Amino acid sequence: MDLLDALLRDTACAARFTTTATLQGMLDFEAALAAAEAAVGVIPAAAAAPIAAACDASLIDREALRDAAGPAGNLAIPLVKQLTAQVKQRDEDAARFVHWGATSQDAIDTGLMLQLRGALDDLDADLSGLIAALVTAVRAHRDTVMVGRTWMQHALPITFGLKLAGTLDAVWRLHGQLGVIRAEVPCLQFGGAAGTLASLGDKGAAVSQRLAVRLGLNAPATPWHGQRDRIARVAAFAATLTGTLGKLARDVSLMAQTEISEVAEAGAPGRGGSSTMPHKRNPVGCAVILAAAQRTPHLVATIFSAMPQEHERGLGGWHAEWETLPDLLMLCGGALDASVALVEGLEVFPERMRANLGATRSLIMAEAVTMALGASIGRLEAHRIVETKCREAVATGRELLDVLRDDPMVTSALPGDALTRLFSPDNYLGAAGTFVDRVLAQVATPPVPLEDAS
Amino acid sequence: MDLLDALLRDTACAARFTTTATLQGMLDFEAALAAAEAAVGVIPAAAAAPIAAACDASLIDREALRDAAGPAGNLAIPLVKQLTAQVKQRDEDAARFVHWGATSQDAIDTGLMLQLRGALDDLDADLSGLIAALVTAVRAHRDTVMVGRTWMQHALPITFGLKLAGTLDAVWRLHGQLGVIRAEVPCLQFGGAAGTLASLGDKGAAVSQRLAVRLGLNAPATPWHGQRDRIARVAAFAATLTGTLGKLARDVSLMAQTEISEVAEAGAPGRGGSSTMPHKRNPVGCAVILAAAQRTPHLVATIFSAMPQEHERGLGGWHAEWETLPDLLMLCGGALDASVALVEGLEVFPERMRANLGATRSLIMAEAVTMALGASIGRLEAHRIVETKCREAVATGRELLDVLRDDPMVTSALPGDALTRLFSPDNYLGAAGTFVDRVLAQVATPPVPLEDAS
Amino acid sequence: MDLLDALLRDTACAARFTTTATLQGMLDFEAALAAAEAAVGVIPAAAAAPIAAACDASLIDREALRDAAGPAGNLAIPLVKQLTAQVKQRDEDAARFVHWGATSQDAIDTGLMLQLRGALDDLDADLSGLIAALVTAVRAHRDTVMVGRTWMQHALPITFGLKLAGTLDAVWRLHGQLGVIRAEVPCLQFGGAAGTLASLGDKGAAVSQRLAVRLGLNAPATPWHGQRDRIARVAAFAATLTGTLGKLARDVSLMAQTEISEVAEAGAPGRGGSSTMPHKRNPVGCAVILAAAQRTPHLVATIFSAMPQEHERGLGGWHAEWETLPDLLMLCGGALDASVALVEGLEVFPERMRANLGATRSLIMAEAVTMALGASIGRLEAHRIVETKCREAVATGRELLDVLRDDPMVTSALPGDALTRLFSPDNYLGAAGTFVDRVLAQVATPPVPLEDAS
Amino acid sequence: MDLLDALLRDTACAARFTTTATLQGMLDFEAALAAAEAAVGVIPAAAAAPIAAACDASLIDREALRDAAGPAGNLAIPLVKQLTAQVKQRDEDAARFVHWGATSQDAIDTGLMLQLRGALDDLDADLSGLIAALVTAVRAHRDTVMVGRTWMQHALPITFGLKLAGTLDAVWRLHGQLGVIRAEVPCLQFGGAAGTLASLGDKGAAVSQRLAVRLGLNAPATPWHGQRDRIARVAAFAATLTGTLGKLARDVSLMAQTEISEVAEAGAPGRGGSSTMPHKRNPVGCAVILAAAQRTPHLVATIFSAMPQEHERGLGGWHAEWETLPDLLMLCGGALDASVALVEGLEVFPERMRANLGATRSLIMAEAVTMALGASIGRLEAHRIVETKCREAVATGRELLDVLRDDPMVTSALPGDALTRLFSPDNYLGAAGTFVDRVLAQVATPPVPLEDAS
Repeated sequence: MDLLDALLRDTACAARFTTTATLQGMLDFEAALAAAEAAVGVIPAAAAAPIAAACDASLIDREALRDAAGPAGNLAIPLVKQLTAQVKQRDEDAARFVHWGATSQDAIDTGLMLQLRGALDDLDADLSGLIAALVTAVRAHRDTVMVGRTWMQHALPITFGLKLAGTLDAVWRLHGQLGVIRAEVPCLQFGGAAGTLASLGDKGAAVSQRLAVRLGLNAPATPWHGQRDRIARVAAFAATLTGTLGKLARDVSLMAQTEISEVAEAGAPGRGGSSTMPHKRNPVGCAVILAAAQRTPHLVATIFSAMPQEHERGLGGWHAEWETLPDLLMLCGGALDASVALVEGLEVFPERMRANLGATRSLIMAEAVTMALGASIGRLEAHRIVETKCREAVATGRELLDVLRDDPMVTSALPGDALTRLFSPDNYLGAAGTFVDRVLAQVATPPVPLEDAS
Repeated sequence: MDLLDALLRDTACAARFTTTATLQGMLDFEAALAAAEAAVGVIPAAAAAPIAAACDASLIDREALRDAAGPAGNLAIPLVKQLTAQVKQRDEDAARFVHWGATSQDAIDTGLMLQLRGALDDLDADLSGLIAALVTAVRAHRDTVMVGRTWMQHALPITFGLKLAGTLDAVWRLHGQLGVIRAEVPCLQFGGAAGTLASLGDKGAAVSQRLAVRLGLNAPATPWHGQRDRIARVAAFAATLTGTLGKLARDVSLMAQTEISEVAEAGAPGRGGSSTMPHKRNPVGCAVILAAAQRTPHLVATIFSAMPQEHERGLGGWHAEWETLPDLLMLCGGALDASVALVEGLEVFPERMRANLGATRSLIMAEAVTMALGASIGRLEAHRIVETKCREAVATGRELLDVLRDDPMVTSALPGDALTRLFSPDNYLGAAGTFVDRVLAQVATPPVPLEDAS
Repeated sequence: MDLLDALLRDTACAARFTTTATLQGMLDFEAALAAAEAAVGVIPAAAAAPIAAACDASLIDREALRDAAGPAGNLAIPLVKQLTAQVKQRDEDAARFVHWGATSQDAIDTGLMLQLRGALDDLDADLSGLIAALVTAVRAHRDTVMVGRTWMQHALPITFGLKLAGTLDAVWRLHGQLGVIRAEVPCLQFGGAAGTLASLGDKGAAVSQRLAVRLGLNAPATPWHGQRDRIARVAAFAATLTGTLGKLARDVSLMAQTEISEVAEAGAPGRGGSSTMPHKRNPVGCAVILAAAQRTPHLVATIFSAMPQEHERGLGGWHAEWETLPDLLMLCGGALDASVALVEGLEVFPERMRANLGATRSLIMAEAVTMALGASIGRLEAHRIVETKCREAVATGRELLDVLRDDPMVTSALPGDALTRLFSPDNYLGAAGTFVDRVLAQVATPPVPLEDAS
Repeated sequence: MDLLDALLRDTACAARFTTTATLQGMLDFEAALAAAEAAVGVIPAAAAAPIAAACDASLIDREALRDAAGPAGNLAIPLVKQLTAQVKQRDEDAARFVHWGATSQDAIDTGLMLQLRGALDDLDADLSGLIAALVTAVRAHRDTVMVGRTWMQHALPITFGLKLAGTLDAVWRLHGQLGVIRAEVPCLQFGGAAGTLASLGDKGAAVSQRLAVRLGLNAPATPWHGQRDRIARVAAFAATLTGTLGKLARDVSLMAQTEISEVAEAGAPGRGGSSTMPHKRNPVGCAVILAAAQRTPHLVATIFSAMPQEHERGLGGWHAEWETLPDLLMLCGGALDASVALVEGLEVFPERMRANLGATRSLIMAEAVTMALGASIGRLEAHRIVETKCREAVATGRELLDVLRDDPMVTSALPGDALTRLFSPDNYLGAAGTFVDRVLAQVATPPVPLEDAS
């Protein structure tokens, strides 16, 4: 148990990488291997059942395993020893055929792939949940006007729907990519000591094929002990997703600042509060997501750094993956879980969004005025006038609208309430609604089924 | 000019990221923007031609641009100023419509996408070249027997074809992924100051559509100034490819060690030699590839770290991408170029490969003997005997074959030349040939056309 | 010329890493080597002068050098060839003694050390400038009250002086560490082809000693071609400094947000402005610093990843350092330069700082009230009362002070203006002044001279 | 329990970061805080003892703590709640003064510093052990001749002592740096909610001082919640050390390759063997060290990336440190432990080292011949002749010595056994012995005591 698990890691995805799950992944490989080899006649048919019966993580002495892994150099060697002893208690003859023809990395990599498959399923489900939550929020705030900010400064009005649609668009893209990854990546590792399956004679390919089918994994063209691009692909996906979630959390945390207060994370008893500072509602969810987004780039980089592994099975690089990939996926899962909660529970304060538009005494609308004025008196002249008026507004602390109203040239060019209307941010949103609708339409369209797309 | 360019960077791909190319990318955006806006009626029809005429990188004063970029904070602001001045010399009226409705990041990101498109084309072509070179080499060495090594120790015999097929398999996968990336990633960036195209009124979407078509880029559902997953996707691909090449170079450099001498990089005048050490042939190509494989994980991590960009356009994160992504792609391109040369020019010494199989006095064939012996006398007994004989061989410095020959039990179980045949590595290659053939068949099959696969 | 240099890189430090400086560093090694070898009698006394005369970067044909570096695998090999040709024109005999007994890496590493020494001098000077600027600002704002923020939420009052003192304290620590690094790191590299100086017979150590003295570098106990901890030490320092500057820039950019407006970067013509958005003053300096702080962690990690270099001189790892270390130092220098400008030019708005303290309707002072009330009625009871009143203030939108004033129990416990005084943030600053004074005193104390500290 | 702990992590250093140690670190802070505040009169004198009594990690309900940490956002908040409940059972009054005036980060950071102090002690002791082991090995192999390799190719003869002396030299430097870090880094964190200790009135500094003394930590000039350079300094040290160890392991693993067999890791039952491949002795220790050296660069980069933390206490950056720094130190500790075992147990085969010198048919001695021949017939002529003879030796497969012997010009210049002597690598070791002796002398000299060096 790690004390920080409940804070940093999503339960569903993290459950794929418990000690039990790791052991069971390798044991599932061993059981399926025995079954496949028995079916093909590599080992006696009678050996499969006793081996399968012993492939149960609860039978493993974990402390002994941990201690033996030190000198052995990996988990599979002592695990196979324990497994063999277990089988021997059941059927001495069968014990001779445990792990037949396989190498440690076959068990470890295939076990990992089984765990990965589950973890990718979890991420897929959670991504669907996030997409649903975002769709709801984008629809609800399609026309909620707020300040658009660039360089962390007020720029022009936007809608909150547009801001969220950017995230929805990205998450939707990533969901599509995840579908391809789920279809292509999970695959069997089976090559024996040097990747030739030599000890299976001419039956290596047949066993391999059955083994993949039995485990529900893709059958690769060739063993891939030293080719880690599939691992890197999963890692890169998880880091990209976490980065996208980090952008969402960054924005929410900025909007939740005390002076800005446009949104707040959902409150709850014991959540983000402070007994002596009653005004605080700490954005705990954002912290979790941002922490993950700071760590995952380095975890994926570890996977990339470890790619040039020596010869048929390498020294150090593979070992560097062992804890790194699960960490990466669990942090990604935790950030995703926190993001779903963040979006679903987000409190939005549209009136504060509108109020903040006024922080610059209407200067934020200067571009709108310039454009409208330019239509009647020419763009350059309009630009010159508005610039002068802006300076006057800043110097005197008056609203730009009021300063412009004092100028007859302006009021004659923009008579009646034309000028006032220009100062309504709702009238200067351009294609925001169109962009939002496009993103929503895209998400609503079911993707091409995977069979056709592969 | 960087003195290390010829060493570290492929010319074709690097040419996409020269100063001229960077400027021209942004200028191509500006020219196409004016044309699109003129077509839709946002700016006068007459403005497009003078603007297009001035959109020529050779007209830009680069020193002035560099100096102005300091206070401005990016390249596009002073570039648009210089461009406007250029247009003004041609047509004062048109000058008022330069960069109309766009923001700096529109020009910079779209310019980058144009550069990326070209760079991805280059990588695609070079990948095809690498695949072709690997196919030739895999075919030539399908049955070239050599030592398979794990943990950097002799394990069992493999073929050089199998080793190369692992790389071919990975590179083929990456080539397929690159096809999807080329189809999906290159896209227009166009959102104006805050991503709403507000200054174009109701014509933003129409201009956007035409602009994308004109530049031959995808039209995204919404601007993506703060959503950098596409950038991360390209970066992750380049790092994965470089890692895969690093694995190839690692293996080659290990095989080229003086004591091993199974391969050598192609020699050439002035290449990798030493005047005072005539025996040296430094693997310069491997060094270039390995250096890239050490740097790219950190460059892609920079891109990931920069993903959580603030609000509609961020502060620092975007700036961190500017030099990093080109560096990453150029290093990847350089490594790919060096890899093609490496594989095409590789000198292979099959007789050394065979000789090295003898380094353990036949102990490398112990597994083969155990398997064969086990068939007649039982696996456990076979195992016990062979283990004893191996120890004897090590202790006496004799060949394992000779030790076994002295034992009548062994020679009666494996009569005639059966024992001797077991010591031929060629007879203990398992599925190596099958694996090689599968990889070759896979590469020979044309992939599903992209239109169907999207 | 890189278009982004003026934006991202400090001129002084960057000038240490120009092409000219890189070449001259290696040539300075070659000239000093000839002089040292002539003095010890390894080469003819007459050879030193012609060699020294030719060691001038302006004589080098850079395009030829770049092209030759490709096959050669590094810069020193073709550089020595060009140098030898130059010397030959002057003195055919002397040409035979160019680079005598040295290896490429001797020239490249020693050249780098000469560049590093200069760059560290620049950083030292700039750090002194930053310390001076911070001292001035800390003194000026020792008692400027503002909001302290945690989790990006209002916490309690602090002073702007305390905030800046944190940075000053860190920068002062780093300045001290830089002093040690400057004294210990810059050192000669000289070992010949395999680190034994074998071709100098028994004169290797003597030449080495003279060479170090001549170049003003430390003489290491042994060549260090494969031991890169000194390089990593410099890199780690630069990254730590940049991270510290990033924290400063992060805070300034947050304080400069439109709604908060507590500070602004110094304005200047063409700096951070926007023609259509007159209210904007983009924090360009912060962007430069933050971009550097996002890139340097990955650049230093590259140096760390490259440390396990093979045998006497490695393959790929060393090559990975070549561009990375200068990039890292130049970005650090750029960030430092921008930080000095940031602090020196920072516009501070104390009245906005004070106004923002009111953003929570005095809730920020709740802890102060609780503490004072607790002294008379017990802490738990005080806590209970204040919590109730805070909820009431939030629910009714009233100031907490007003809500409390309505309660006779409170006013009797805190009679007269006692209650009102509690709501003055100036009275709840605790040890802020003490902390500030300590940091200032620390900086004012001259450090122990280096001679005594080594 | 993590199954990989025995493999990847040193027990001593890892024991500093168990759940128990983490909890006890925070509880030690709380106990010392109560004592210091009681002494200064901030809390009742009677409160200290009951609080101290409850500050025992074994009293904490860890599952409840883990679950509560999720919504709370860190461990200290729920820990203080549990602690308060524990104290309440002993003394209701004292319970009101638990954690008085402190913030969560005070407890967490100070707890970490207590853990760090211990971990740095462990590293220091292990470094001393490694230095001792290296001194022994360097002395033993001062004159053991072997091949020096550059670019992974034979270069010139060196000694095994020189190779190891390079590592010893680096490790000795790092040991000295660790001494300074141990003296300077471990320090108290105590600032209260916003770093002002406001709730302690005018007694903050006094409490702070006593608290530091009681915990045996340095008292910093000011709280450092947002200034993480000390953390980065420790992290950078650990990564540098691990990188240096990685270089050692890289070399050992290369020398232990089957064809080279110059060294082997100490064998032991169950260690690195393979039942079916009796010739294998897997370098498990090297794998552990190399895996650590691949991961630590990315872990330290995470710490650097997390440095720009917002305002008085940040959002995400600090959280990103929590697991990263212990991981980094434990991996470093594990690598260090493995390195001590590696060096102490290393089997060295000097006869193989000497035999490998012959792999190039004496070409490795060409430089030695050229130098000697040059003394009598001029360097250029000597160079020309030797080059010709080398080509002849390669073409004919003869030893260079034999080829040279056939040439009367050579034998007259180098009469008698002069030529033969040149082909003894022992006579071409240059300053190798001097360098080794210098490194040994340096290590033997006691460093300047820390008091004088600070």
